[in-house]
Amino acid sequence: MTVKLDRICALIGIEAPRGAAHLSITGVASLEDAREGDISFLSNTRYRKYLTSTAASAVIVPSGMDSPPGIITLPADDPYLAFVQVLELFDTRSRGDVARGIDDRAVVSPDAVLGADVSIGPFAVIGGEVSIGDGTTIGPGTTVLPGTRIGGNCLVYPNVTIMDGCLIGDRVIIHAGAVIGSDGFGFAPHDGRLKKIPQIGRVRLEDDVEIGANTCIDRATFGETVVSRGTKLDNLIQIAHNVKIGMSSVLAAQVGVSGSTEIGGGVRIGGQAGFAGHLNVGEGSSVGAQAGVTKDVPSGETVSGYPAKTHMLAMRLEAALRQVPALLKTVKRQELRIEKLEQIIREQEKKHAG
Amino acid sequence: MTVKLDRICALIGIEAPRGAAHLSITGVASLEDAREGDISFLSNTRYRKYLTSTAASAVIVPSGMDSPPGIITLPADDPYLAFVQVLELFDTRSRGDVARGIDDRAVVSPDAVLGADVSIGPFAVIGGEVSIGDGTTIGPGTTVLPGTRIGGNCLVYPNVTIMDGCLIGDRVIIHAGAVIGSDGFGFAPHDGRLKKIPQIGRVRLEDDVEIGANTCIDRATFGETVVSRGTKLDNLIQIAHNVKIGMSSVLAAQVGVSGSTEIGGGVRIGGQAGFAGHLNVGEGSSVGAQAGVTKDVPSGETVSGYPAKTHMLAMRLEAALRQVPALLKTVKRQELRIEKLEQIIREQEKKHAG
Amino acid sequence: MTVKLDRICALIGIEAPRGAAHLSITGVASLEDAREGDISFLSNTRYRKYLTSTAASAVIVPSGMDSPPGIITLPADDPYLAFVQVLELFDTRSRGDVARGIDDRAVVSPDAVLGADVSIGPFAVIGGEVSIGDGTTIGPGTTVLPGTRIGGNCLVYPNVTIMDGCLIGDRVIIHAGAVIGSDGFGFAPHDGRLKKIPQIGRVRLEDDVEIGANTCIDRATFGETVVSRGTKLDNLIQIAHNVKIGMSSVLAAQVGVSGSTEIGGGVRIGGQAGFAGHLNVGEGSSVGAQAGVTKDVPSGETVSGYPAKTHMLAMRLEAALRQVPALLKTVKRQELRIEKLEQIIREQEKKHAG
Repeated sequence: MTVKLDRICALIGIEAPRGAAHLSITGVASLEDAREGDISFLSNTRYRKYLTSTAASAVIVPSGMDSPPGIITLPADDPYLAFVQVLELFDTRSRGDVARGIDDRAVVSPDAVLGADVSIGPFAVIGGEVSIGDGTTIGPGTTVLPGTRIGGNCLVYPNVTIMDGCLIGDRVIIHAGAVIGSDGFGFAPHDGRLKKIPQIGRVRLEDDVEIGANTCIDRATFGETVVSRGTKLDNLIQIAHNVKIGMSSVLAAQVGVSGSTEIGGGVRIGGQAGFAGHLNVGEGSSVGAQAGVTKDVPSGETVSGYPAKTHMLAMRLEAALRQVPALLKTVKRQELRIEKLEQIIREQEKKHAG
Repeated sequence: MTVKLDRICALIGIEAPRGAAHLSITGVASLEDAREGDISFLSNTRYRKYLTSTAASAVIVPSGMDSPPGIITLPADDPYLAFVQVLELFDTRSRGDVARGIDDRAVVSPDAVLGADVSIGPFAVIGGEVSIGDGTTIGPGTTVLPGTRIGGNCLVYPNVTIMDGCLIGDRVIIHAGAVIGSDGFGFAPHDGRLKKIPQIGRVRLEDDVEIGANTCIDRATFGETVVSRGTKLDNLIQIAHNVKIGMSSVLAAQVGVSGSTEIGGGVRIGGQAGFAGHLNVGEGSSVGAQAGVTKDVPSGETVSGYPAKTHMLAMRLEAALRQVPALLKTVKRQELRIEKLEQIIREQEKKHAG
Repeated sequence: MTVKLDRICALIGIEAPRGAAHLSITGVASLEDAREGDISFLSNTRYRKYLTSTAASAVIVPSGMDSPPGIITLPADDPYLAFVQVLELFDTRSRGDVARGIDDRAVVSPDAVLGADVSIGPFAVIGGEVSIGDGTTIGPGTTVLPGTRIGGNCLVYPNVTIMDGCLIGDRVIIHAGAVIGSDGFGFAPHDGRLKKIPQIGRVRLEDDVEIGANTCIDRATFGETVVSRGTKLDNLIQIAHNVKIGMSSVLAAQVGVSGSTEIGGGVRIGGQAGFAGHLNVGEGSSVGAQAGVTKDVPSGETVSGYPAKTHMLAMRLEAALRQVPALLKTVKRQELRIEKLEQIIREQEKKHAG
C-alpha cells in the first residue's frame, strides 16, 4: 500500500511539508523498526533522540517540538490521535476475512431473523429466535444459542459461544473463543452435596462494547449481567453472574470480577486484578494490576496491592516494609542501649542508697 | 410463565398465606429490581429494610422474622434453599437449546458407541471408540477425540475440546470453550533445548463434576489427573498434569493448580488463587482469593495472602504492616531520647569523674 | 503395549540386568501407583525408601545409587532423561487422532497452498492465501484466517483460532482453544469515548514453539508480536501486542505480559506472574509465580513478590514482616522504659538543682 504524504497530511489536518507532498509512504513502524517509506510517530519528547537515528521517511511529532535537520516531521496538536488516523488509513484488514456473506455450511435456524448485509462463516450455528442486525459478521465456528439478540455492525470472531437469551447491542466486537452467557457459579449446600442453583438470567452487552479473546461473561442467576456502552474488556477476563460495569470503563487482561459486584463508568482496571463479590467500585476509579479488591472503592480513588488500599498508602507501606530489616537492627541496638542505661541508673541508685 | 402462589408454597413446604393462594407469580427478581408479579427473597435479616420498598408480590424470608405490613412474605426454615427451588420452577432453559437429537452435520465415528437419547449438535466431532452414555448432550462445535468415555446425562456445551482417552462420569457439566486432556506442561532440558516430555496419562472427571467456561484440565504425564465426585470448577481455571482434587470441593474462577498437587475434599478456593506443585491441601481447608500457596495446607485450615499463611496470621501481619510508618517515627524519636539520656549519663559520669 | 526390558535398556544405553532381559514391561507409573509390569523411575535419592514398597517391575535410578534387594533397578547417568525416553516408547498417542488426511467437511480456500501429508480435520476453515507446510495437522473446528503462513510438522489442536496474516514456524504445537493474532488492546480517548486503535501488525511464532490451551497471543499494533524459537507457553496465558519473547523461555500457566514488554531467552516464569508494559526482562532471569513485575529485570536475576524484587530481598522482607508484631510490642515496652529513665533523670536533676 502506497500513500502520498500530502494525503496523510490532509487526513491529520496539517500542511504538507514543503517539497515533500508527493513522498511515497508505504507502511507504519516504530522509530526503531522503521525503514525507508515508513511513517512513524513520537508522542513524547523524551524519545526525541531517536529522531536522529530512525530510518523513517516521516515522523508525526508534537507540534512545537524542535526537529533535528534531515528528517521530515509532521507536527500535530494530538500526535497520538494523528497516528491512530494514519493507522486507520493503513488498515487493510477486512471483515471479509472473517466471513463473507452467509456461508451455506453455516446452520441458521429457519426462525432466526437476519438483517441486511449479515455475514455468517462456515460452521457457525445460529439458533432459533435469534435476531442479528444489519451489517453484523459472525465468524466460522461461532455458536449463538436460541433467543439471543445481536445488534447491527457487530463483529463476532471465530469459535465464540453466545449462550441462549443474551442481548447484544450495536457495533459490539467479540474476539475469538469468548463465552457470553455461561452459567453463573452458584451452588447451595444441601444434604451434604452441592446443589446447582439455576442460572436463569442473561447477559446484556451494550453498544460499542469490546470483549477480548477467551473472555468469559457469566449470565445472571436472575436479572442481568451488564457491560455498559463503550466499555472494553481485554482477553481472558472473568465476569461473574450479576456483575454490572458502567460506561467507557477499561479492563485489562485476566481481570476477575466476582458475583454481583458493580463497577462504575470510566473505571480503569489493570491486568490480573481481582474483585470480591457484592462490592461497589466507584466511577472514575483506578485499580492497579494484580490488586485484590476486598472493599468498596470510592469514586475517583486509585487503589493497588493486596488487600487493595489507596495507592498512596500501598506505596507508603511498601517503602516502610523495606525499612523493617534495618529497623529490627536499630531496635535491637536500642534495647542494649536502654539496658545499659538502666544498669547505670540501677548502679547509681545502689551507690546513692549505699 | 405464570405460577400461582399456592403452587410455590407447596413446593417449598409451607402454607399459602391467607387469601393469596391464587396470586399470580410471573418472575423472579432481587428485592431491588422486582416488579409486580415477581417473587423475591431475603436470606439475611440485615436487608429487612428493603421489604418496605420492594415492588415484589411475594418474598421468601427466614421463618420467625417480623414482616412489615403490606407485603406478602413466605417464611421458610432455609430461605436460600426455598429460593433455589423457586428458581428451578422458573427455569425454562432447555438442553434442547444446546442440541436436539443427533444432528446430521455432526461427525460421529462409526465405531463410537452412543447410548439412548444422546444429542449431538451440528459440527461436533465424536472420534473413534468414544462412548457416550444415555441422555448426554454434546453441543455444536465440540470435539471429542478417540478413546474418551463420557457417562450419562452429561451436558457438554459448545466449542469444548475433550482430548483422546479421557474418562468422564455421569451428570458432568462442561461449559463452553473448556479443554479437557490437553498436554501437561513438561520439558526436559537436553542438548541446550527443551525436550518435550510425552504426556501419556489421562483426565478423569467423576460424577456430578462441573467445569467452567474456558477452563483447562491437563492430562497426566502418566496416570491420571482427577477431579472427584461433585467438585465444581468455575471459569478460566488451570489444572495441571497429575493434580488430584477430592470430592465436593469448590474452585472459583481463574485459580491455577500446578502439577501433582493434591487437594482434598470439601475444600473452598477463592478466585485467582495459585498453588505450587507437589503440595498437599488438606480436606475441608479454605484458601483465600489470590492466595499464593507454596506449602502444604493442613486439613481444616484457612489460608490467605502471598506467600499463603493462616488467615489469622495474614490479617495480623497486615495490621502490623499498617503500623510500621508510625513505628519508624517512634523509633527515630526514641533514638533521640536514648541519645539524650546517654549524653546526660556521660556528662554525669564526667562530673563524677571530674 | 508390551516391551521387553532389554529393548528399554538398549534405548537408554545401559546393559540389561542379568536374567531380566526378557521381562515384559507393559506400562509406566509412579513408584506409588505402579503395578506388576510397570516401569517407574526415581530421580532423587530422597525417595529411595519407596523402592522397597513399590510394585513396579523395574525402576530407573541414578547410577551409583545403592539399590535394595528384590527390585530390578536400571542405573542411568541422567535418570530423568532416560525416563522421558521410556515415556516416548510407551507413547501411543497419535496425530491421526486429531485429524487424518484432509477431511471433506473442512473448508479449504482454493488459493490456500498445502504441503505434502497435511491433515485437516472436519469443520476446520483454511482461509485464502494461507500456506501450510508438509506434515502439519490442523484439528477439527480450527479456523485459520487469510494470509497466515504455517510451517511444516506443526500440530494445531481443535478449536484453535489463528487470525489473518500470522507467521508460524516449523514443529509448532498449538493446543486447543488457543487464539493467535487477536487484536492488541488499545484505545485512544477521543471526544469522551474510547477510539479503537487499529491493530495492523501480526504474530510470529518461531520454530519449535508450543502454545498452551486457551492461551491468547495478540497481534502487534504494527510490527510483530514474537515468540522465539523453542519457547514454551502453558495454558491460559495472555501475551499482549508487540511483546517479544526470546528463545527457549518457559512461561507457566496464566502468566500475563503487557504490551511491548521484551522478555529475553532462557527466562523461566512461574504461574500467574504478571508484567507491566514496556519492560525489559533480561536473559536467563527467573520470575516467581504470582510475581508482579513493574520494573526491568536484569539478566540472570531471580525476582518474586509484588511489586517484584530480587527473591533474596523478598524473602528478607517477608521474614522481617513476620517479626513486626513482636517488634511493635518491644518498641512499646522500650517506650515505657525510656520514659522511666527520663523520669529518673529528671528527678535526679531536680534533686541536684534543689
